[in-house]
Amino acid sequence: MTNDLLSHVGEIGVIRLIQRFFPDHTPYVKKGIGDDCAVLETGGEDLLLVTTDMMIEGIHYTTKTTSYEDVGWKALAVNLSDIAAMGGTPHTAFLSMGLRSSTPVSVLESFMRGFQEMACEAGVFLAGGDTVEVTSDSVISVTLLGRCSPEGLVFRSGAQVGDDIWVSGFLGNAAGGLEILLTNEHQEKRGRQILVSSHQRPSPRLKLGKALGESGLVHAMIDLSDGVAKDLRHICDESGVGAVLNRGSIPISEPLQTLAQDLSHDPFDWALSGGEDYELLFVSPPEYRKEIEEITINVMGRTATRIGLVVREQGLWLQTGGDRTQFPYGGYAHF
Amino acid sequence: MTNDLLSHVGEIGVIRLIQRFFPDHTPYVKKGIGDDCAVLETGGEDLLLVTTDMMIEGIHYTTKTTSYEDVGWKALAVNLSDIAAMGGTPHTAFLSMGLRSSTPVSVLESFMRGFQEMACEAGVFLAGGDTVEVTSDSVISVTLLGRCSPEGLVFRSGAQVGDDIWVSGFLGNAAGGLEILLTNEHQEKRGRQILVSSHQRPSPRLKLGKALGESGLVHAMIDLSDGVAKDLRHICDESGVGAVLNRGSIPISEPLQTLAQDLSHDPFDWALSGGEDYELLFVSPPEYRKEIEEITINVMGRTATRIGLVVREQGLWLQTGGDRTQFPYGGYAHF
Repeated sequence: MTNDLLSHVGEIGVIRLIQRFFPDHTPYVKKGIGDDCAVLETGGEDLLLVTTDMMIEGIHYTTKTTSYEDVGWKALAVNLSDIAAMGGTPHTAFLSMGLRSSTPVSVLESFMRGFQEMACEAGVFLAGGDTVEVTSDSVISVTLLGRCSPEGLVFRSGAQVGDDIWVSGFLGNAAGGLEILLTNEHQEKRGRQILVSSHQRPSPRLKLGKALGESGLVHAMIDLSDGVAKDLRHICDESGVGAVLNRGSIPISEPLQTLAQDLSHDPFDWALSGGEDYELLFVSPPEYRKEIEEITINVMGRTATRIGLVVREQGLWLQTGGDRTQFPYGGYAHF
Repeated sequence: MTNDLLSHVGEIGVIRLIQRFFPDHTPYVKKGIGDDCAVLETGGEDLLLVTTDMMIEGIHYTTKTTSYEDVGWKALAVNLSDIAAMGGTPHTAFLSMGLRSSTPVSVLESFMRGFQEMACEAGVFLAGGDTVEVTSDSVISVTLLGRCSPEGLVFRSGAQVGDDIWVSGFLGNAAGGLEILLTNEHQEKRGRQILVSSHQRPSPRLKLGKALGESGLVHAMIDLSDGVAKDLRHICDESGVGAVLNRGSIPISEPLQTLAQDLSHDPFDWALSGGEDYELLFVSPPEYRKEIEEITINVMGRTATRIGLVVREQGLWLQTGGDRTQFPYGGYAHF
């Protein structure tokens, strides 16, 4: 193992290595590494949720496809989405940045404007952070705190055999938007702006996450940051179950369909492995279908989509008509 | 302003710019930007403390002078020191890292061993974080949570005219240690290892910070990360007062004296502007001198040192015999 590089063990290997150094629990930590947020007891009625995301210039964002304002918005949005996936309500953010000293002040102002806009929309206050100098790629690290009642909390680990798998909105729009930006593919064409917005200004599903948590009808939930192919696997791993996705049910937007035709690309590739949609994926017993539809219509104005089923046999499958095939590993992974 | 670069506005300008976007308060945040930690109300009896520090390879650390184990130790230690400076007790850490995929696994293991050692010593549990890939300099961002009773909390802002200024231990040892490592100056010479350790493995003053907070005798406190020249100024600015430092009282260790002689360097330069000592600097009314001495002897085995006086006139002065001179701005600043 000693001569191995991080590229050999991969992102999951790196996380497991880190986790190995802290095998025990403490009275404060109800849930540590392995969910969208850590969950802490701090003595109050509500639990404390904590999530943190690091974004690197050139890896997570490039100003070729995203304005500084959008980078600011997104830096907070991706963390808000993690709070949403626990059923929580965000309240306090910490923003650390490594910036080059040659960065124009106007760039920092643009970034902060986008960050502030997202914060206002979500009711989040910035209470601290750190600003340091870098000599190469800039780096942004946001830590976000939220709260949740013990009853409203939803983990990744509660999925049960027979549960429906739901998704809150269209999949693949963000990946399609990125494709448009990278290829300069007819940005003016009808519907394309929706895809571009999905990539540049994702809307975390805070209200829906909270409503689903409070309903008590949801067994497990995660936000779709790396693509269904990877994120659903987390629910399966943590719950000790498997999942079958019904290809025909995957919600693909009309603009994405059109883009896929224009570029001769399989839209399911974007939908399943593209990532960055920041929709919620959740599982719930079939007897609550009507209630789930009602909740999602109430909150979002339209119903969530049932895309599959939790099964006993561990693994992921894609059902296409009568055909069931093993689902390839996919989604974004570091190292 | 629009054409300015971050290098023109400096670290303080950058922080003020960020702060401008969040002028209001929220019910959760008792103290936001501008102290060692943010202080949050989360419904329990104790307050929640949050601090975060970002370390960049080549700026904050280099493995030329610090082993990976020491970098791991230090990444947590600098945050622990912020909790100590509020009078708090740390409990939960979040660790985000941007690493090159060509990093050997053994390097990450070494880093984690140092981090774990410091965490064990401080009673801290790692509950989450993020691991991402970088293509250039690696980056480490730690967010640390702690707790404090409302009565035991000490801010930077409470200094009053006439207060004594105290420091918990020797100043300049860390800067001297760094000098030894950079110049390869007789590492084996007696006492030099103490200086090197001060740089590589700083010991945050957690017990002392808590004891001082609980005593109720301390008006303001800060940890010395950037050097007295800069950190004492924070206390003055936040409290609306000035300070006079007595040059003859600055505690300089015997190994640092010797090193300074050998290198023909002024040890006061290291002591006042060197930074990274992670001692506590605090102010307390003269009538409690005996109690402060007792507390510090009880906790550290020796007394803290009185190095100056809080005065009405804003600014910093250095008193040398009968001579009082304006104290130059100093200490480490980004951008």
